[in-house]
Amino acid sequence: MRLASRDTLAARHAKLRDALGAAQLDGLVVTHLPNVLYLTNVLGTAGIAVFMRDRLYLILDFRYTAAARDVWESPSGCPEAEIVPVERTYDETLAALIKKLQPGRLGIEGASLSLQRAHQLARSVDAGLEVGDMKAGSDRLAFVSTDGVIERLRMIKDAHEIEMLRSGGMLLSAVAVDVLEDVKAGLSEQALAAKIDWRIKSAGFERCSFETIVASGPNSALPHAHPGGRLLREGDLVVLDFGGVYGGYCVDLTRTVSLGRPDAEMQRVHGAVLEAQKAAMAVVRPGVRAGDIDAAARGALGRHKLAEAFGHSTGHGLGVEIHEAPRIGPRREATGDAPAPPDDAIEPGMVFTIEPGAYLPGWGGVRIEDDVLVTSDGVEVLTNVPTQLQTHGFRRD
Amino acid sequence: MRLASRDTLAARHAKLRDALGAAQLDGLVVTHLPNVLYLTNVLGTAGIAVFMRDRLYLILDFRYTAAARDVWESPSGCPEAEIVPVERTYDETLAALIKKLQPGRLGIEGASLSLQRAHQLARSVDAGLEVGDMKAGSDRLAFVSTDGVIERLRMIKDAHEIEMLRSGGMLLSAVAVDVLEDVKAGLSEQALAAKIDWRIKSAGFERCSFETIVASGPNSALPHAHPGGRLLREGDLVVLDFGGVYGGYCVDLTRTVSLGRPDAEMQRVHGAVLEAQKAAMAVVRPGVRAGDIDAAARGALGRHKLAEAFGHSTGHGLGVEIHEAPRIGPRREATGDAPAPPDDAIEPGMVFTIEPGAYLPGWGGVRIEDDVLVTSDGVEVLTNVPTQLQTHGFRRD
Repeated sequence: MRLASRDTLAARHAKLRDALGAAQLDGLVVTHLPNVLYLTNVLGTAGIAVFMRDRLYLILDFRYTAAARDVWESPSGCPEAEIVPVERTYDETLAALIKKLQPGRLGIEGASLSLQRAHQLARSVDAGLEVGDMKAGSDRLAFVSTDGVIERLRMIKDAHEIEMLRSGGMLLSAVAVDVLEDVKAGLSEQALAAKIDWRIKSAGFERCSFETIVASGPNSALPHAHPGGRLLREGDLVVLDFGGVYGGYCVDLTRTVSLGRPDAEMQRVHGAVLEAQKAAMAVVRPGVRAGDIDAAARGALGRHKLAEAFGHSTGHGLGVEIHEAPRIGPRREATGDAPAPPDDAIEPGMVFTIEPGAYLPGWGGVRIEDDVLVTSDGVEVLTNVPTQLQTHGFRRD
Repeated sequence: MRLASRDTLAARHAKLRDALGAAQLDGLVVTHLPNVLYLTNVLGTAGIAVFMRDRLYLILDFRYTAAARDVWESPSGCPEAEIVPVERTYDETLAALIKKLQPGRLGIEGASLSLQRAHQLARSVDAGLEVGDMKAGSDRLAFVSTDGVIERLRMIKDAHEIEMLRSGGMLLSAVAVDVLEDVKAGLSEQALAAKIDWRIKSAGFERCSFETIVASGPNSALPHAHPGGRLLREGDLVVLDFGGVYGGYCVDLTRTVSLGRPDAEMQRVHGAVLEAQKAAMAVVRPGVRAGDIDAAARGALGRHKLAEAFGHSTGHGLGVEIHEAPRIGPRREATGDAPAPPDDAIEPGMVFTIEPGAYLPGWGGVRIEDDVLVTSDGVEVLTNVPTQLQTHGFRRD
């Protein structure tokens, strides 16, 4: 797996240092593993990074220390950093490190740390806890719950990330062309999904980026159907949604196939969804808001009286996670019970999906999804697969 | 997928009702999705169950409501329950429901709910928060952080769960026999892992229960290696660790293969690990502690001077999660910074892995893993695959 260079990591660290300075924090305890990977080039199923303004400490257990040292001795090493092996447990090791470093205000990732763990940790180092406008406990050391500090940096991809996502998009497009040939009447959804997963892994992806969706016939009306035992047959719409992880970065693609000659309603719905996708892509440029992109897709579907049939968001950011910022969804106001969801300003270097759909219960559904990179004046589409309604088993007269 | 019957769900609910009574709670907000599945037969990527003493409310968004209603109208329906469709967001819908139900003391799952979300939720319904001995805010309504209430019930499998795990164990054993035939010099770790995943899914598992491990040659010394581009070759030890989800239940198996004639050291280490596994299995019976099982495995490896080479726990519970209670690991004392880890008493109906290993950096490693069900007087092994050191590409003289 190709990793970011030492200089790339240093640039990420510099940005994080600025963000912590602005938030008046001495450091940040990074418990969300995709964020640990982003800062250190180390990916395990466990690991905690403690990012102080002058040094990064990476707490790892014996399963990962040897591999991490190998990476760090390469040109992809982590600058100004050291590995701290786990003694007994992660959180005990973290507590001991915090006692040694003696920060005053230490950020914690409030969205990834559980309530129970945050309190146990605060208690073990006698720290106060600040969550929003709630403050409790000690003033000497405060844990400050932060929200998306590193996730906001990750929204804008650097050159290494763009290269991985471009390569991933090309590779997934090649897989998709083969997958579209695999769709045959008589195959079960599960068997086709297993074939797709095999193609993804054989093509050189590290793994699937999520559980592959093969939704056929009436199941295609369920946007998140699990592949089941249903056999594909003539007359089905089949939604195929799959993705891979390449160099640590997630790509994602959906095509909808008609098995046999599509009828007029299939053509109408597919055409409307395709129009919605094109409308959304056409508005992407620096300066617009995520909500504008969503509104363009929703508006196009509305013109075809399919607004009600489109229940999910238009897209999501892609990166070391399959769902990350920015959220490309409807603009909404805050209420007494919840803050407004983010409506990010679109900037060059963002990478996200555009995936409108229309789902008609009992009949079926259509979704078309591609991955785009925001450029200085528009959009670069990273995936490249025909979007016309496929007509397998059908010969044109 | 076969689901638990209405009566089985009712029995689970009755046990949970007792546990809540003992903890003086009016209800429990269930946010951990495997627990939602356990109580309702509904599995999505989102969903919140609010379990009150007299009724269960299942909050679901539009993606899952139709499928959930279908399940609930079947013999696998959820007793005394209703579906609450999401209005705007899950947590806003939850807040509105809590305001309507007016509980006094409501449990929340402190290990699965994030710090940020717990505080936002408490604030939106003006609830106090109790975490351990910390209490803050309102007395009229208190959110009480609970620890493993449902997970403790899940440790003892009911008849439906045992049937799924038995079937899963048999199916995985059949897959393993084919997988052992697939191991050939010249294949990459990645290609072999893709083949294993395809076999798992084609055999009828819903999905892999974790990312398949194929660790060859020196990589086999890393207990949690990711399959990479390394080509398998004569003289390698190859650790194969894979599993599937059957009827919602996870099974897990590891075998270590020698490609070509194993040398004396391979035979010695493999023999020691096998001895450790047998020693651990021999002590499993109701009344012993998890730590006793771990000690048996560790003691056997110690007699072969391999205690230092075994860095992980001896096993983990299996069920709707691939890692669940009981933890079969070393007994440890509490410290000022952390409570002692659980050392559960072994009871009939528990299902867990027994998977000792020995890892020698630079040389390689061996792990042997099977799944066991605790019976009234010992153990039933759910997986059935030869454990001798395999010798592919080798013809005996």
